[in-house]
Amino acid sequence: MALIVQKYGGTSVGDIQRIKNVAQRVIDSRKQGHDVIVVVSAMSGETNRLIALAQQVTSDCSGPEVDLLLATGEQVTVSLLGLALQEMGQPSHSYLGSQVKIVTDKAFSKALIQSIDARKIHMALAEGCVGVIAGFQGVTCEGEITTLGRGGSDTSAVAIAAAVKADLCEIYTDVDGVYTADPRICPNARKLDKISHEEMLELASLGSKVLQIRSVELAANHQVNLMVRSSFNNNAGTLLTSEESTMEKIVVSGVALDESEAKLAIRDVPDQPGICMQVFGAIAEANINVDMIIQNTGADGRADLSFTVPALELAKAKKIVMGLKDKLGFTTIDADEDIAKVSIVGVGMRSHAGVAAKAFALLAQNKINIDMISTSEIKISVVVRKGEGKKAVAILHDGFELYAT
Amino acid sequence: MALIVQKYGGTSVGDIQRIKNVAQRVIDSRKQGHDVIVVVSAMSGETNRLIALAQQVTSDCSGPEVDLLLATGEQVTVSLLGLALQEMGQPSHSYLGSQVKIVTDKAFSKALIQSIDARKIHMALAEGCVGVIAGFQGVTCEGEITTLGRGGSDTSAVAIAAAVKADLCEIYTDVDGVYTADPRICPNARKLDKISHEEMLELASLGSKVLQIRSVELAANHQVNLMVRSSFNNNAGTLLTSEESTMEKIVVSGVALDESEAKLAIRDVPDQPGICMQVFGAIAEANINVDMIIQNTGADGRADLSFTVPALELAKAKKIVMGLKDKLGFTTIDADEDIAKVSIVGVGMRSHAGVAAKAFALLAQNKINIDMISTSEIKISVVVRKGEGKKAVAILHDGFELYAT
Repeated sequence: MALIVQKYGGTSVGDIQRIKNVAQRVIDSRKQGHDVIVVVSAMSGETNRLIALAQQVTSDCSGPEVDLLLATGEQVTVSLLGLALQEMGQPSHSYLGSQVKIVTDKAFSKALIQSIDARKIHMALAEGCVGVIAGFQGVTCEGEITTLGRGGSDTSAVAIAAAVKADLCEIYTDVDGVYTADPRICPNARKLDKISHEEMLELASLGSKVLQIRSVELAANHQVNLMVRSSFNNNAGTLLTSEESTMEKIVVSGVALDESEAKLAIRDVPDQPGICMQVFGAIAEANINVDMIIQNTGADGRADLSFTVPALELAKAKKIVMGLKDKLGFTTIDADEDIAKVSIVGVGMRSHAGVAAKAFALLAQNKINIDMISTSEIKISVVVRKGEGKKAVAILHDGFELYAT
Repeated sequence: MALIVQKYGGTSVGDIQRIKNVAQRVIDSRKQGHDVIVVVSAMSGETNRLIALAQQVTSDCSGPEVDLLLATGEQVTVSLLGLALQEMGQPSHSYLGSQVKIVTDKAFSKALIQSIDARKIHMALAEGCVGVIAGFQGVTCEGEITTLGRGGSDTSAVAIAAAVKADLCEIYTDVDGVYTADPRICPNARKLDKISHEEMLELASLGSKVLQIRSVELAANHQVNLMVRSSFNNNAGTLLTSEESTMEKIVVSGVALDESEAKLAIRDVPDQPGICMQVFGAIAEANINVDMIIQNTGADGRADLSFTVPALELAKAKKIVMGLKDKLGFTTIDADEDIAKVSIVGVGMRSHAGVAAKAFALLAQNKINIDMISTSEIKISVVVRKGEGKKAVAILHDGFELYAT
């Protein structure tokens, strides 16, 4: 008998029939002798509906009232799932984030969890109940309702699993697990049985939207066994493990595509200390995340500085840099939205030389031009033309023989 | 400068534009120098939508999860109204029932308020904020969310007004105030400037759905000045006062119609002690409210026992009585849904003889047959055929000269 936290996302509780299906899955787990805590998101579409309501009354869609509004989404789901479980004969107790004291800081709409009081949950389990907990939401010390940001329910689930010392945290979603590449791009992509936390972190941050990145970090830090699996079938999912437990080190685990970024190139910047600090300091102040940064210094003592930002923030970032033009003394700034970032990830890269060289060769043989390169210990990312992104993924996926056999 | 509690019902916050209108009204009150606390209901239709969701997962639509579900309705409204006020430049703070500690008992779906902690509200007011509080909901000592039952937001508003010692509690609704009769039945009905709490209690319980009956009792008990007015215009409303403050005692204040009841008549019951106890004890156990009760004893020592119940509960009540047939020894039981209850209400009846006689005369002159009669100190109710209910209201309304002049 194990203690399992199961998290069901918006698609998995998207309508009444699906909520009933989730209730049946939970009961099946109970029948196998497990104690179960369920963490749920808002029904799919609900959060967007609520945001649309808020946007009709305010131009500034942030602050305590917005969190209070969005928190109703998960409140509806825990109520309905609780009722469904009871109707099917399974005692349950539904809780809001505030009721199990998921205490967060006061950063509304992106609050960080500080502590969870697991006593109420343990009491419910001891009485034979399933605990149903609203994901995505918390409460400040002063009793104000907060939310954790998009995808925050994954983080809620892992934090609760850590607090109750669960044996397993299952994240149910609409895909079977983590694949070597997006199956829509590589139909022969293979589902991974295991992946290390580090690889998952790289894949999550690279646009593979299976798990929220914070939840993976949290699972790694608190040794939570995390499994990603589908709520629509009984297929085995993908287990996230610490690197050590992976018996056979695979060189490359997966290939990811990110089409959401854009590039800014500042031309002919005097190559002086402090330039980067000024540029990226100003951009960070505007709360824009910079991803890849490349600087080439020419023989004339002037440099080209290129970097990528979310495409949605491109105009804002460009304006900020333009404001520094006189101070920095550059000639022009070019914006480029026609880019895709392709990345290969794998902990085995650490001990295998030549992975980058092989990747560059594969792309060159297929006449795909590389615009930017960035590498880490377990990841190689390249920027290519947007139209060639999917082709590059397929070439690398096949070249590293990641396909199902 | 006064402290005013304003309550806006579901119709008054029924869509985004109406929520903005409410925000403007609140700001207008602030500009007149008043401190304002706003209590809001769920947007009209929302509670029914949520109940429909619950009914799709459970056959037993009651218990903690249902209250948790329904409480989201008011949570959405306080969020949106708070955002609207802030967008219009008025600082505000939105609160759930649990956040201002509207502590109730554990009677889910019909909880009774036990206490309110007004400190947070006073702090918000001291900072120049408007306090926006979710009506209809509370919280148990153990932190479980409760609701107060249909129309509970009126009760929330009056309880909050009592807790903060407000100078006035304004109940905004979709009618201008309390009328001498339903204007749809008597187009010449007159709006009352004042009405006593007792008269309002009789009218509210008789089917005049302007105010929830509990809120009137609460206002009477805590000397809260209660005003009913429309959120769609600036007309003066109707002020509820303690009887003493009504200078001129009007004999009859209003005529009310209730078409929601049905009658059960038990024929030929042996006239023995304990019969009534057995019948009404069994019906009360099934949580059915009995309204009028009439017993006629014949010369043969057998009696007819007639009473009214909500038409929706008629079948259930009949079944209960049928179960007692052998025990009670009656011959038949007749159910009659074709009834309407017409009532005249007025504190002046206490000191004026002949009101009942005049009412019976008016109905007789117009050939309306009276089936049952029930009287209290300030009320006379008669049961007539359903098809004659509206006519009876009009006759009594004109006969007692209640019309606008």
